[in-house]
Amino acid sequence: MHPLRWGDPAAASPLPEGARALVEAVFGPAEPHAERPSALAAPSVPDEFVQAAHAAVGHDHVLLDDDTRRLRTRGKSTPDLLRARAGDLADAPDAVVRPGTHDEVVAVLEAAVEHHVAVVPFGGGTCVTGGLAARRDGYSGLVSLDLARLDRLVEVDPVSMTATLEPGLRAPEAEELLAGHGLTIGHFPQSFEYASIGGFAATRSSGQASAGYGRFDAMVVAVTVATPTGTLQLGTSPANAAGPDLRQLVLGSEGAFGVITSVTVRVRKVPEVKVYEGWRWPSFAEGTAAVRAVAQSGLQTTVLRLSDETESAVNLADPDAINGSGGSSTDGCLMVVGFEGDSDLVAERRAAVTRLLTDLGGEAVGEDPGRAWEHGRFRAPYLRDSLLDLGVLVETLETATFWSGVENLYAAVKGALETHLDQPALVLCHVSHVYETGCSLYFTVAAKQSADPVEQWWRAKRAAMDAIAAQGATISHHHAVGTDHRPWLEAEIGTVGVRILRAVKAELDPAGVLNPGVLVP
Amino acid sequence: MHPLRWGDPAAASPLPEGARALVEAVFGPAEPHAERPSALAAPSVPDEFVQAAHAAVGHDHVLLDDDTRRLRTRGKSTPDLLRARAGDLADAPDAVVRPGTHDEVVAVLEAAVEHHVAVVPFGGGTCVTGGLAARRDGYSGLVSLDLARLDRLVEVDPVSMTATLEPGLRAPEAEELLAGHGLTIGHFPQSFEYASIGGFAATRSSGQASAGYGRFDAMVVAVTVATPTGTLQLGTSPANAAGPDLRQLVLGSEGAFGVITSVTVRVRKVPEVKVYEGWRWPSFAEGTAAVRAVAQSGLQTTVLRLSDETESAVNLADPDAINGSGGSSTDGCLMVVGFEGDSDLVAERRAAVTRLLTDLGGEAVGEDPGRAWEHGRFRAPYLRDSLLDLGVLVETLETATFWSGVENLYAAVKGALETHLDQPALVLCHVSHVYETGCSLYFTVAAKQSADPVEQWWRAKRAAMDAIAAQGATISHHHAVGTDHRPWLEAEIGTVGVRILRAVKAELDPAGVLNPGVLVP
Repeated sequence: MHPLRWGDPAAASPLPEGARALVEAVFGPAEPHAERPSALAAPSVPDEFVQAAHAAVGHDHVLLDDDTRRLRTRGKSTPDLLRARAGDLADAPDAVVRPGTHDEVVAVLEAAVEHHVAVVPFGGGTCVTGGLAARRDGYSGLVSLDLARLDRLVEVDPVSMTATLEPGLRAPEAEELLAGHGLTIGHFPQSFEYASIGGFAATRSSGQASAGYGRFDAMVVAVTVATPTGTLQLGTSPANAAGPDLRQLVLGSEGAFGVITSVTVRVRKVPEVKVYEGWRWPSFAEGTAAVRAVAQSGLQTTVLRLSDETESAVNLADPDAINGSGGSSTDGCLMVVGFEGDSDLVAERRAAVTRLLTDLGGEAVGEDPGRAWEHGRFRAPYLRDSLLDLGVLVETLETATFWSGVENLYAAVKGALETHLDQPALVLCHVSHVYETGCSLYFTVAAKQSADPVEQWWRAKRAAMDAIAAQGATISHHHAVGTDHRPWLEAEIGTVGVRILRAVKAELDPAGVLNPGVLVP
Repeated sequence: MHPLRWGDPAAASPLPEGARALVEAVFGPAEPHAERPSALAAPSVPDEFVQAAHAAVGHDHVLLDDDTRRLRTRGKSTPDLLRARAGDLADAPDAVVRPGTHDEVVAVLEAAVEHHVAVVPFGGGTCVTGGLAARRDGYSGLVSLDLARLDRLVEVDPVSMTATLEPGLRAPEAEELLAGHGLTIGHFPQSFEYASIGGFAATRSSGQASAGYGRFDAMVVAVTVATPTGTLQLGTSPANAAGPDLRQLVLGSEGAFGVITSVTVRVRKVPEVKVYEGWRWPSFAEGTAAVRAVAQSGLQTTVLRLSDETESAVNLADPDAINGSGGSSTDGCLMVVGFEGDSDLVAERRAAVTRLLTDLGGEAVGEDPGRAWEHGRFRAPYLRDSLLDLGVLVETLETATFWSGVENLYAAVKGALETHLDQPALVLCHVSHVYETGCSLYFTVAAKQSADPVEQWWRAKRAAMDAIAAQGATISHHHAVGTDHRPWLEAEIGTVGVRILRAVKAELDPAGVLNPGVLVP
């Protein structure tokens, strides 16, 4: 992807005139920010490492040109984009190395240790928490380990309903390959179009259909990891009691312990039917109670999400809806409930959930809002680019907690963001991942950009993260830790938890070449 | 519990005459093994430690008498019982220390480190893998840390549907306390009557209703662990992406990393209705295919289990059935399917599962076999005592794998056991824990005892464990590692996995006082 924007330029589109007028009414006249040309520093990596990398992966797969390096610079958070737009690509890797096999990954790691080169595993490049901006000081160079060539569907086991995939496989290609077997992973995060299987595993990703398919970490049954001190292979069975579940130590390790070279996931049949429908609730509190009731009822939905009043009114996922003409704008709060599967099962589940939601006082508003959500589900990052073009700061932040803490967490984070954005701002929120015991809260902000929008966002984000930590909620439900959330990790897992991560890191990567500065405080 | 037998003597009963006659027909004349008196060695623990323990927990809770020590000796595997029956209580702790709070646990661990005393956390004492038989050589003494006084239901959160429990709380008392709130954990392993909450967490326990309620490790949302180097508190949210899920490193840590002092679990409403019913399948292969179909259908059952041909014929869970008069004996293979929940939901789920099983060629055999299973579900350990009394060796062993490996795993383990028991033997098997991608296999053996029944069993078990490892299956689905399975742990998690466990152990317990020789190779 382009370092300044999300995704395929052909899929981008300027805001409709009506939406633009509304944006200007809220945030003031558009102030297009010029993009400054970015020059990369010359690559600084020892020749001996480059030669070792040549030996490991072949000449064609060790790239030092500016274009290749530019495309592997940082991820896709708004600060990442703003800094790139301002001409700052200081985190560009010195080289991009593209192994094609597990053994080639091992060989590159050996060379990195020998020459003390920092290694940043790279999948889809969609990280929004600074996980691709490893520390380079103290290292002789910094290399992006691009896993794009590890892109095979290795095996399908239709009896066990599992598939073994390589980490560089992008989600759409993975789904396409599996569709050939009538199967699906069912993992559809907003980053779906570009994100990779390895990234899903390394960050404990959670998709929009998590209510039905589960989080990615719940789907993984086996994993292979190349570490600088040996290969780790885990996964003898769906679940076991053979000591701690070390798979769950690999999932979420963000390239700091090793490079995931193979992932075996549970797959399902491609659903016969998909239905997404809308429900309206008088308030976010009542909607949240309804979402909780569904989650705790034992009834099964595939998608379950609820927007707060502001997000329901200003549906940023759907540019057509911003000017009020879209079908998904609504008074009160919009809930989307989705069902996927065999038609009989979907009909039964839908009927049961409809009974429950009706009993709770919800108003069914038909399938249009569901379709609008489905249509726009991967569009938000493109819209962000359009709004950044107009001088509007747009960014997201998410957390999760137990149900009894949701109301306070919502108020605390929303308050922190509103107070610290220092400009006219909208703060939107939705619940998009639900569990029997709690849920996530996903906040989107839109504010007029100040003179230093990166610092403007960071001031607000720091306040929000402090509020999250004070509430005892998680610092990330599904965006991971990266470099951005690392200062708050100790609040989440304590000093003993941090010491565990450091001990595992020291054992597997004693030279500290893997993603230095990412995840482990 | 008595070191020589399972459970409450009042609940024990000799075999009915018919059953005894059948046992003698199969295994030959009963050869009652006399129980030899066991004398304990005098406790060998430094006075300074005893004084420190007094200061930590009070005089009344540091016990050095033989009776108390005898009751904390080893667990409840058949070798444990056989050795105790033979007068061998060599693994008896030197002292039993009973802390009443988290801080008292911390203080005892400090004293243990200072005086280099090995500490064995003790919950219900139901371990069947040697997890209570820590190594004592190299230590100045060995102490059983009995958690029975940490027995509070700390908090119920009816909104989040969670409950916080102390580790020494026994499962029946936990269920009773929660029933006062209309709630249940839903965790019913065969050891239910004596097992403790801390033990469930420390061993990744799995209950007989795991299909509906999940494994214990899937229920835990938060945990507090006292380690010799600090307290670990985890659990901000149902799930998150704040790095690896360290809860899953604590679950299954078997007291080797720290002492679990609090567990927060997801709870559910006490079910309105419970229905368990039987289905008959022509063969274990066809029954297994049916179990898999249910597990992969998206239909929900609470209990799902299937006995192989031999186990269906000889239902050891129900002494009345051994002589053929019981309702649960059957040609072919018996499946028990259970549903719990609100009556509407149970009726719907039962109807859907009935349709599926009928389509697959199953024969519904009514609720009698379900009731018989429910009646006998915690009886097997009592029956084992009765058979040991007659000179019959009875023991169990379990594993799990992915569905495509089940047939080979079954044949390999059954073959290994039959070949190496060296006496007339029955090998029974059932599937009792199912997942979309695989299931567990639980074997029960009954054989005429040879002159050295402990070694007789171990010869067979070693062969079975080797077969499990060769099949790439797990060395334990729900009995944990302990000391008994430790030689095979490297086959499960590799040398890198073992190094991770050692690194975490060294970080949290650098003096190595916690359960030495258990879990970590």
